Amino acid sequence: MKQVYVDYNASTPIAPEVREAMVPFLESHFGNPSALHAEGANAKKAVQHARDQVASLLNCTDHEIIFTSGGSESNNHVLKGVFESYSHRGNHIITTKIEHPAVMNPCKYLEWHGARITYVGVDQHGRVDLNEIKAAITEDTILISVMHANNEVGTIQPIAEIGKLAKEHNIFFHTDASQSVGKVPIDVNELQIDFLTIAGHKLYAPKGVGALFIRDGLEIEPLVHGADHENGRRAGTENVIFAVGLGKACELAGATMGENEQIQALRDFFWEQLQAQFNERISLNGHLDERLPNTLNVNFIGQVGQDVLAKLPQVAASTGSACHAGEVTLSPVLAAMGVDPEVGKGAIRFSLGKYTTKEEIDTVLSLLRDM
Amino acid sequence: MKQVYVDYNASTPIAPEVREAMVPFLESHFGNPSALHAEGANAKKAVQHARDQVASLLNCTDHEIIFTSGGSESNNHVLKGVFESYSHRGNHIITTKIEHPAVMNPCKYLEWHGARITYVGVDQHGRVDLNEIKAAITEDTILISVMHANNEVGTIQPIAEIGKLAKEHNIFFHTDASQSVGKVPIDVNELQIDFLTIAGHKLYAPKGVGALFIRDGLEIEPLVHGADHENGRRAGTENVIFAVGLGKACELAGATMGENEQIQALRDFFWEQLQAQFNERISLNGHLDERLPNTLNVNFIGQVGQDVLAKLPQVAASTGSACHAGEVTLSPVLAAMGVDPEVGKGAIRFSLGKYTTKEEIDTVLSLLRDM
Repeated sequence: MKQVYVDYNASTPIAPEVREAMVPFLESHFGNPSALHAEGANAKKAVQHARDQVASLLNCTDHEIIFTSGGSESNNHVLKGVFESYSHRGNHIITTKIEHPAVMNPCKYLEWHGARITYVGVDQHGRVDLNEIKAAITEDTILISVMHANNEVGTIQPIAEIGKLAKEHNIFFHTDASQSVGKVPIDVNELQIDFLTIAGHKLYAPKGVGALFIRDGLEIEPLVHGADHENGRRAGTENVIFAVGLGKACELAGATMGENEQIQALRDFFWEQLQAQFNERISLNGHLDERLPNTLNVNFIGQVGQDVLAKLPQVAASTGSACHAGEVTLSPVLAAMGVDPEVGKGAIRFSLGKYTTKEEIDTVLSLLRDM
Repeated sequence: MKQVYVDYNASTPIAPEVREAMVPFLESHFGNPSALHAEGANAKKAVQHARDQVASLLNCTDHEIIFTSGGSESNNHVLKGVFESYSHRGNHIITTKIEHPAVMNPCKYLEWHGARITYVGVDQHGRVDLNEIKAAITEDTILISVMHANNEVGTIQPIAEIGKLAKEHNIFFHTDASQSVGKVPIDVNELQIDFLTIAGHKLYAPKGVGALFIRDGLEIEPLVHGADHENGRRAGTENVIFAVGLGKACELAGATMGENEQIQALRDFFWEQLQAQFNERISLNGHLDERLPNTLNVNFIGQVGQDVLAKLPQVAASTGSACHAGEVTLSPVLAAMGVDPEVGKGAIRFSLGKYTTKEEIDTVLSLLRDM
């Protein structure tokens, strides 16, 4: 029996359209984009087209986009780059307690190097409080980094308001949008974002490619020094094939943004059925409305998430807690939300995608019923 | 007319064997290797197999290999990581004047951060002098970074001797082997190398993937912080497809190492014919013997490299000098070798590969005759 894949927030399959765009570059157009001959020129043109496609999805200009090896690199680049280039202004960064490790750990690294980091909390639904961010701002604050949507529970942060606040205080604003790009519309100008992280494998492009939006006029120290690629902002021969893939994925995301309504309808159907099936033995993690359309994180009360999934080998999903030697530890995200450990130990994240069918959800429901 | 591609040192085509190994991962096995379900496990297994293949080519163990986004990242990781983790021992690094910008510019960066860098010179053939390195060593020296083979002229450095010297002085030894892996056999133990850089797209894998050998027992600060990928040494969801590609490319390189003899024979034939054709109007850059088997860097005396290539649009090769507004500047490599600018301005690098045919070389010779 084929596994039902409801772990899209971990990694998506590559869309056929994306694969088709990449395949010609597996077979030819292999030149180095820096080379002056025809093989090089073809590759260069392809990367430029891809850059346009990414920029178009975010409503920015092509020269505000650099390609990276993924979301982790993009986040490292911004956090370390801003700290290095602007520490003369101050050493304070504001972020949240529910960031991905690719933001959290660069922050820890910067703390060892003299940065002061404020980790603001979230409410029971996983939303940050704008006033808490506001209260944390000091004269030394150089950057606010708040993820657009949380990977585990899907809660969407008040990005426009944070952008406005940052702007008012002349502080840079970065958002890790790895989970939201393609799932909700993003306009970096409307949202007043200075830096934005994209991870290819969360939006039907391959693992190993990402992008970083750097607002025009801002210059930060590169993470990878070397030759003059990406206008001197990121050294390394361009990953032509995956840039082409990410570009196509962004184009596709823009063209099919409406599909998210169907995904949300299916997700909501799933949740209604689960409630009918489990009654008070199930509860929701995350914000009811301000949430990614595809994400459903639920607690199977009285059970351990890992055990539930072990009983469902036909379902590919993720737990919200780790179990080592009989001891269950909540994920930092659920812990920050104040989820009762006795409840949260039963957390499972189901994340749907563009290829998820009603039949698959019915299968999961039926397997859960029989477990 | 199809272009004759003799720019393999810039970037190679993807070998059909490598392509075939990757294609299944474009279509399925898309799971996140960190996930616990079957989709994740398949991806994890593939990355592990690829790691074994890379390790096998270098005669090291699998846990001494991490995957990166390419040679530039690998070089940055080593240089910055060693400096950060071992600056308590000293702040001095020895490298050469002919390194790739992906070593040179991290060194410049470290200089702004308190490192002292010695850039040793090379002789007219592009070889470093072991005694010069030896003389540069001080009590503060923590790292020697010398490229295995030069990308422009192909000269191979006395790596075994440098490895021995570094070992005797308890100094770490890094070699950027981006150009040599696959072209000459490398045994990291025999050569006493501590860190070695691999770039996928120089050995028939795609652009956008590389690897870094880190000798067992050595721990350096990561370049990309985040989740616990690559045993905590490099955060970011694994680039499964390209890891598979690089693994296969390494396996292929090991199995076909003997092909380099034919490539060398063709390269030498090319050189003989060029000499016969141009007599004293041509000269060689690089070491006659200690040189990559595929590289032929020649000066067309009295001409400008860029102009020669402009007359040969059917040939994809590289120049050894840049021409801006009529002013010709030698590459730093040719300059360090002491090449007369009047001669070196005519430099062109032809780099052959496993798909280069005698017919193609005959074509280039004939085009050069008629230009």
